[in-house]
Amino acid sequence: MLEVCLLGTGGMVPLPKRHLTALMVRYNGSNILIDCGEGTQVAIKKKGWSPYPIDTILFTHYHADHISGLPGLLLTLGNCDRREPLMICGPRGLRRVVDALRIISPQLPYEIIYKEYAEPMETWQRNDFHIRAFRVNHRVECYGYRIDIRRQGRFQVERAKELGLPCPLWGRLQHGETVEHEGTMYTPDMVMGEARRGLSLVYCTDTRPTDRIVEEATDTDLFICEGMYGEGEKDQNAKRYKHMTMEEAARMAAKAKPRRMWYTHYSPANMNPKQYEKGLRKIYDKIEVPKDGKSIDLKFDDEA
Amino acid sequence: MLEVCLLGTGGMVPLPKRHLTALMVRYNGSNILIDCGEGTQVAIKKKGWSPYPIDTILFTHYHADHISGLPGLLLTLGNCDRREPLMICGPRGLRRVVDALRIISPQLPYEIIYKEYAEPMETWQRNDFHIRAFRVNHRVECYGYRIDIRRQGRFQVERAKELGLPCPLWGRLQHGETVEHEGTMYTPDMVMGEARRGLSLVYCTDTRPTDRIVEEATDTDLFICEGMYGEGEKDQNAKRYKHMTMEEAARMAAKAKPRRMWYTHYSPANMNPKQYEKGLRKIYDKIEVPKDGKSIDLKFDDEA
Repeated sequence: MLEVCLLGTGGMVPLPKRHLTALMVRYNGSNILIDCGEGTQVAIKKKGWSPYPIDTILFTHYHADHISGLPGLLLTLGNCDRREPLMICGPRGLRRVVDALRIISPQLPYEIIYKEYAEPMETWQRNDFHIRAFRVNHRVECYGYRIDIRRQGRFQVERAKELGLPCPLWGRLQHGETVEHEGTMYTPDMVMGEARRGLSLVYCTDTRPTDRIVEEATDTDLFICEGMYGEGEKDQNAKRYKHMTMEEAARMAAKAKPRRMWYTHYSPANMNPKQYEKGLRKIYDKIEVPKDGKSIDLKFDDEA
Repeated sequence: MLEVCLLGTGGMVPLPKRHLTALMVRYNGSNILIDCGEGTQVAIKKKGWSPYPIDTILFTHYHADHISGLPGLLLTLGNCDRREPLMICGPRGLRRVVDALRIISPQLPYEIIYKEYAEPMETWQRNDFHIRAFRVNHRVECYGYRIDIRRQGRFQVERAKELGLPCPLWGRLQHGETVEHEGTMYTPDMVMGEARRGLSLVYCTDTRPTDRIVEEATDTDLFICEGMYGEGEKDQNAKRYKHMTMEEAARMAAKAKPRRMWYTHYSPANMNPKQYEKGLRKIYDKIEVPKDGKSIDLKFDDEA
């Protein structure tokens, strides 16, 4: 089960009832935070989660509304007596920006591992998360994220029996090990069925629509996308500041066909984005216009 | 009338129901903010005030819980299209710290004027505010503040008449000008009565008790002081981290005899500081243990 919480839905400036846009996902004890604006650590506490197990922070870019909460969060993790390393990932300039902000959180009891993207697309694994950062189109270098939890096939009991493999070896093969039995080597693919559908989500904000976003979001469980401007007449602002209207995001969703689509990063002037939901569902019926704290537990297709 | 709002009362870390400690005061169109932790701009909005007219920010010191909200506030002022200069004042290192934090708010449409304290005590005037920064005793260089609004004496109508001064000149003398009438120079002190009691407040946080604080707080209208630890057994922590227990602060108030005394900067572990109020009032009866947003309009003694 992949637990997802959209901690905040605001763009530009934190409001009394709207935290800045950030996402937190949890799977099997590992936690990823995407973006950390002013107040994100408060939003985590409001959700009832702890910041302590966050082992990875992914930044889309370094505009203040996406990173201003970092020094406070780093200190809070330190005050929790965190000792395990924290991985922080983001576009070029990451280390320079984080080092500057750390003027107010210089001493931490844990190591920070930096991953600064050199390519328009980077893919890596962190615990059970398969992460892909892909460049989007904003005023500064900015990345979207796809996160996948893969699911292997079922263990083929009949096949293991045919091969004469004794029961105690099954578990090791299931966990990806190669085993030796009576002088013969057995690899997992010899006893595992075809990989099953896993879980996937795409998160992108602060960008114009791009084909790459559509491609990444295709058939995902959840597509979270900025919808900075609610009204049609804001098209010019969306183009000028390199954001999207809610309608533009909906048209991407209609092409990508994710199982669910959530908006985020509303303009502070867009006080009631929910009013547009009905109209947007005519473009794509799986759309939701959520508020802060919107959560879902994504489950595998055959999971109870 | 001096409007005062204790925007937040928390120390160390922002909580869902407790903003970090910060104070905002307004007088005659001029606004001072003391400290700006993560979320202070949200607390200003919750109060229903605008950050726009803040013309002076005073920092006690540069621990993150007192300054982490600055880059966001600077950007918000820029987004309001502020053009007037902003004065930022604080202990040594001010410019280095603010410049580093501004990596995420580099372009602003207004000028920043820095005032970095070179002495243990500095006094200056900003609009109608007479400000004194005085060094306190924390783990790093830290200052408390006294803010005074002075009040001149009454205009002595009889005296002006005796001097043969015509009515149109009275207002200029009242506003501090020297005027000439029929070849003679007249100065304000010739027609103004003795200065009346003004308004004054002292704000100090992140310090051990000091004689200087007692001296500054003496007979003020409002003394705002940290009360990090509520329980007696926290004495050792208070000494170790150079903070105060609520009792230590109360004993300072009992010496200084301000008209009102408010606590702030509660430890995040001190979830219900109000429980100590009754006991603390036995030490000094003008004590209040406020929550976020605690406000007062301080009025001159003869003001309606």
